[in-house]
Amino acid sequence: MIADKVRVGIVGVSGYGGGELARLLSMHPKAELTYVTSGTYKGKPLSAALPGVANRINLTCEEFDIDTAVAKCDVVFLAGEAGLAMKLAEPLIGAGKKVIDLSADFRLKSTADYQQWYKSEHTAPHMIDQAVYGLPEINRSKIKTASLIANPGCYPTSAILALYPLLTHLGLKPMLGPIVDTKSVIIDSYSGTSGAGRSKFSLDYHFAEVNESIKPYGVGGVHRHVPEIEQTLTQIANVFDPVLVTFTPHLAPITRGILTTTYSTLIDPMPAEQLRDLYKVAYKDEPFVVVMDEGQWPSTKMTVGSNYCYIGLTVDTRTNRVIVISAEDNLVKGMAGQAIQNMNLMCGFEETDGLQMVGMWP
Amino acid sequence: MIADKVRVGIVGVSGYGGGELARLLSMHPKAELTYVTSGTYKGKPLSAALPGVANRINLTCEEFDIDTAVAKCDVVFLAGEAGLAMKLAEPLIGAGKKVIDLSADFRLKSTADYQQWYKSEHTAPHMIDQAVYGLPEINRSKIKTASLIANPGCYPTSAILALYPLLTHLGLKPMLGPIVDTKSVIIDSYSGTSGAGRSKFSLDYHFAEVNESIKPYGVGGVHRHVPEIEQTLTQIANVFDPVLVTFTPHLAPITRGILTTTYSTLIDPMPAEQLRDLYKVAYKDEPFVVVMDEGQWPSTKMTVGSNYCYIGLTVDTRTNRVIVISAEDNLVKGMAGQAIQNMNLMCGFEETDGLQMVGMWP
Amino acid sequence: MIADKVRVGIVGVSGYGGGELARLLSMHPKAELTYVTSGTYKGKPLSAALPGVANRINLTCEEFDIDTAVAKCDVVFLAGEAGLAMKLAEPLIGAGKKVIDLSADFRLKSTADYQQWYKSEHTAPHMIDQAVYGLPEINRSKIKTASLIANPGCYPTSAILALYPLLTHLGLKPMLGPIVDTKSVIIDSYSGTSGAGRSKFSLDYHFAEVNESIKPYGVGGVHRHVPEIEQTLTQIANVFDPVLVTFTPHLAPITRGILTTTYSTLIDPMPAEQLRDLYKVAYKDEPFVVVMDEGQWPSTKMTVGSNYCYIGLTVDTRTNRVIVISAEDNLVKGMAGQAIQNMNLMCGFEETDGLQMVGMWP
Amino acid sequence: MIADKVRVGIVGVSGYGGGELARLLSMHPKAELTYVTSGTYKGKPLSAALPGVANRINLTCEEFDIDTAVAKCDVVFLAGEAGLAMKLAEPLIGAGKKVIDLSADFRLKSTADYQQWYKSEHTAPHMIDQAVYGLPEINRSKIKTASLIANPGCYPTSAILALYPLLTHLGLKPMLGPIVDTKSVIIDSYSGTSGAGRSKFSLDYHFAEVNESIKPYGVGGVHRHVPEIEQTLTQIANVFDPVLVTFTPHLAPITRGILTTTYSTLIDPMPAEQLRDLYKVAYKDEPFVVVMDEGQWPSTKMTVGSNYCYIGLTVDTRTNRVIVISAEDNLVKGMAGQAIQNMNLMCGFEETDGLQMVGMWP
Repeated sequence: MIADKVRVGIVGVSGYGGGELARLLSMHPKAELTYVTSGTYKGKPLSAALPGVANRINLTCEEFDIDTAVAKCDVVFLAGEAGLAMKLAEPLIGAGKKVIDLSADFRLKSTADYQQWYKSEHTAPHMIDQAVYGLPEINRSKIKTASLIANPGCYPTSAILALYPLLTHLGLKPMLGPIVDTKSVIIDSYSGTSGAGRSKFSLDYHFAEVNESIKPYGVGGVHRHVPEIEQTLTQIANVFDPVLVTFTPHLAPITRGILTTTYSTLIDPMPAEQLRDLYKVAYKDEPFVVVMDEGQWPSTKMTVGSNYCYIGLTVDTRTNRVIVISAEDNLVKGMAGQAIQNMNLMCGFEETDGLQMVGMWP
Repeated sequence: MIADKVRVGIVGVSGYGGGELARLLSMHPKAELTYVTSGTYKGKPLSAALPGVANRINLTCEEFDIDTAVAKCDVVFLAGEAGLAMKLAEPLIGAGKKVIDLSADFRLKSTADYQQWYKSEHTAPHMIDQAVYGLPEINRSKIKTASLIANPGCYPTSAILALYPLLTHLGLKPMLGPIVDTKSVIIDSYSGTSGAGRSKFSLDYHFAEVNESIKPYGVGGVHRHVPEIEQTLTQIANVFDPVLVTFTPHLAPITRGILTTTYSTLIDPMPAEQLRDLYKVAYKDEPFVVVMDEGQWPSTKMTVGSNYCYIGLTVDTRTNRVIVISAEDNLVKGMAGQAIQNMNLMCGFEETDGLQMVGMWP
Repeated sequence: MIADKVRVGIVGVSGYGGGELARLLSMHPKAELTYVTSGTYKGKPLSAALPGVANRINLTCEEFDIDTAVAKCDVVFLAGEAGLAMKLAEPLIGAGKKVIDLSADFRLKSTADYQQWYKSEHTAPHMIDQAVYGLPEINRSKIKTASLIANPGCYPTSAILALYPLLTHLGLKPMLGPIVDTKSVIIDSYSGTSGAGRSKFSLDYHFAEVNESIKPYGVGGVHRHVPEIEQTLTQIANVFDPVLVTFTPHLAPITRGILTTTYSTLIDPMPAEQLRDLYKVAYKDEPFVVVMDEGQWPSTKMTVGSNYCYIGLTVDTRTNRVIVISAEDNLVKGMAGQAIQNMNLMCGFEETDGLQMVGMWP
Repeated sequence: MIADKVRVGIVGVSGYGGGELARLLSMHPKAELTYVTSGTYKGKPLSAALPGVANRINLTCEEFDIDTAVAKCDVVFLAGEAGLAMKLAEPLIGAGKKVIDLSADFRLKSTADYQQWYKSEHTAPHMIDQAVYGLPEINRSKIKTASLIANPGCYPTSAILALYPLLTHLGLKPMLGPIVDTKSVIIDSYSGTSGAGRSKFSLDYHFAEVNESIKPYGVGGVHRHVPEIEQTLTQIANVFDPVLVTFTPHLAPITRGILTTTYSTLIDPMPAEQLRDLYKVAYKDEPFVVVMDEGQWPSTKMTVGSNYCYIGLTVDTRTNRVIVISAEDNLVKGMAGQAIQNMNLMCGFEETDGLQMVGMWP
């Protein structure tokens, strides 16, 4: 261990989120990976779980043990099964650790919502208040002082970043609030299959059935990311009446990437150029959001392996609709990269430390 | 030649549409392929242009010649470059031939629209009236007596079949017209790359740049299929004020298939089951439209190689939106299969002749 | 049922082999599918197991019952788990049925070999003699009179068709036997993932791990197709000393297709043109083997959906090696198509009945 | 510019090799990218050519100019068209620059070989002697003092690393030379399409034709990498009679990666374990070669984005053949990563500087 590096543990390192954390942290200048756990691979070298590691990270996957975690880590990423954070957040924070949870345990502020959407009772409701929703573009200052981060879902990250400037008042004078009808928002997303994780084996993710196919799922407002998106958009819009969205996820035959196409109706007509300026102002200091120029559109390929979210937009003047499209790597900005961005903020590092890689091309 | 078979020619056989016509016609019980033309492959065997043909079709690609076409064919499919039908439809029809055009030459009824969207003057405006838009589910009876078919675009086929029962009055008593707001329609489509054809070489279709990527294009109502969709939906809706849609096409890293997700706002609330019944009634006699049961959703994979269009639907009761999703093989129901379906109707054959293949799985 | 059609049953219709049989038989002019069984989908319509079927085949998956099979079928395809044919072949044949087994139960003539490679005892050794190895290009006359067909494996089909003319004496005068060293044969194959079947769920076939990856498996002569290949090549070569091959299978991120590249050392130098002539002679009457011209090479794409095997070849004159490369659709010529070809021969139909489809392109 | 960083230029930054250099160099701790040129994108920001760059590298693509290159760079990577190095190597080296050429200009030591395989005359034969073939595992000490590096081809890197320990005497006592027959070597490779570059537009790399297909090309010893492989293997083997190989390249429908399967005949039988030990000894100090354990095999996916070459091996004891299989990312260890590894050696940096990224998974 190098004395001035923060010591980092990953609980559940053999999943895609945990593995991506390990990959990215291995290149982080101020963090050292000291503890990795995996039920499936316990006792085996990390390279057994993550073949691309080769001989670069010499760690053995351990079975999780709270005392070891406390002894070995300053920051703990929880990347294992749902419910883990409800159990571990309190003792880890009690021992002075910073906790970044990649699950949905602490994303929803209402336990009733949690119960409705996740079909089980929330077992750590008293911890919800101190959990900060870890989307730096929205909650940066709160993240800096937080001990518990609810790292956003992959779809919500792509949708919220696409819609944020439409719903907040920023950049408009006088401040007017949302410039689109908050009941008009439609979110149509396509995700690569890595979003479904590494351990769900079924025909749904069997190569021969997924390959060369695109298909919807969770249609009609039934996907668990709906309340997460609406909660955050409502907070952003700062309106009395909640923002309601129609969200349709689809599975695409790619490994990484989410493309989200959003439709919203402008309250008052606005030319595309003015809207683009609004977005450029909204994101001008954001290190990981790229607002594209006129006629440019994002693709998932642009984002592979990087922490960037690309945003393209226009106005369909015939129908007065705004179309905003975002792309991200679901495992980076949509998951592990964003978690490290949160860690950087919590630890007082440069927000971009360890996250400066550009997207692979091709 | 077998005496009782219709003699068929394909102009532009080496493109994806022409090739698919040849593939399907080689299995047609009542058609015989007698004439194939290709500028690129003239003088070469068809198998040079279409490697999968092997030794099954022993034809040589010829350079197009009107007299030869007239001598050798009863039905001519025009699958070459845009503008071909404006030149050839009249002489071929004049010689008593049936013409099915796969291009956009005769899809729009207004020459002004044509000029606006295709950036060139229509050179055969006097032929427009006799051209029938070849979507059998809408125009079956007209197709049966037509000599000139404007075969629909691939995106319009998928969109119109998804939306048709929402906009026509059928199945509802008393007849009320559209059950959705005709200004609320959003069409979000993903197409495989074969839709871009075989001869456009650019980075846009270069394997290493398309693979593992999804991306939008033609965003904001600028794609040429917009007027085609709106013209037909307006005709279906039979309303004074034209139907306006927002249409966003995307490119997906698959070879074949279009998935179209549509959103429309119900005028009056309606439960999903009732809506599904409406669709089942609307399509109950259609041989190539499958309305899926509750909880079932189409995928492009289901349609590969077949002439079927699968449709799944639900109502997002929170937002009062109808979500209807369709899938088709863009080269079959979206192009060559539909063209043969039109031929079958024009020739008095069974509508399903030569089109009874089921989708390949996997 | 149409009186003059043979009645066909598929045991294990929900796997990829069984499903492909159903797809192909639905287009067969002289066969009618009357009975389909599936443990997983029993009681459900065939379209639940095979989404591409739509409303074309109205059969319900049943649980297998020998009496029903006997009552409903003239020909039974066994496409279920290994060992099924050892149980069912005898009673079905005893009841006068023709049996085509897609498993390896009856491919090896030696029970010792079976036990060594399949790690279990052969439970119907007395039936082995009447089983004919169903590769029509080698065993056509025996197939015509057989009641029990051991349908070849996908890799062996591609390898044997590539090597056959090198090892038999045909076309050479005076008859000399093999023209290559029978100990020099190397077979390097790449298969699409459908070859692994539909029910093996593991990381090995999880989309995100297979996609964008090629990898070997079963390296070093340990794959079960080795004895099948060697048994048939030895029979062809008609030599005292068995043919020995090195066979390396690989998994490719495609759904369908096998490409097999073979290397053999010529006993005496021979120019490529002469070798090509030898192949053209060997296969001149074969309806499903295409020997390609100089400079042409097969691709798996050429074969998708068709029963063709394409063969390209040359001589590396610097090293005196023959390189012969074959491509096939592993589910058609490598499995279900070949099984139907065998049925056609057994039933006295045209060998190409129901198999005349050309490869999809693209 | 940071004073203690080496200033680096890339000529031809918009190709896949040049782009990958830019991507990797942007993360290099001791190099600063100061100059990038592109004919196609001159005057445009680097992000126009490399979409994944977003706002991370603020450079404009310039038209190449020798004086600017000399003024701005200490090291120049030549990643443009063939022939560039024959023109530029001399003036750049004369100005004290280090030159790393990614083309084949200086790979072959014989101008006759160059002329035979590349069909044009070598225009800088006097520079050949000072060019060092930049495969660090073979030529490390020469690379450290070189001014001109001929960066190896992607296929040769994968083949030579797979075969090196079989042909050199290392690890065997007494030194015996090659342990395999130097005329028995067969190399069967599959490459992703990025190996064909970014600017060759043709049906061969058109998405719809490549996707879901594997196919051979350059069969029979006609690929230009043959003399490069044989020259280096002969040098390694240190035998009088040149090593001759049969090399068959194939195109696979993946973006990145080469898998090379090699077959060689052992002079004397040797168990797989002993052979593996030999490889482990041969590569024990190599930072970028991973010799895999028994039963483990490389896949291209393991290497995506990393500079590693993975090697798996066994002995087919029935045929006395050694099968060695290697995997690499053709754009990293097969191209840009290796070029940077060479730069590190030439500049006295740690060999692994800027190359410590692990493979992306999934």
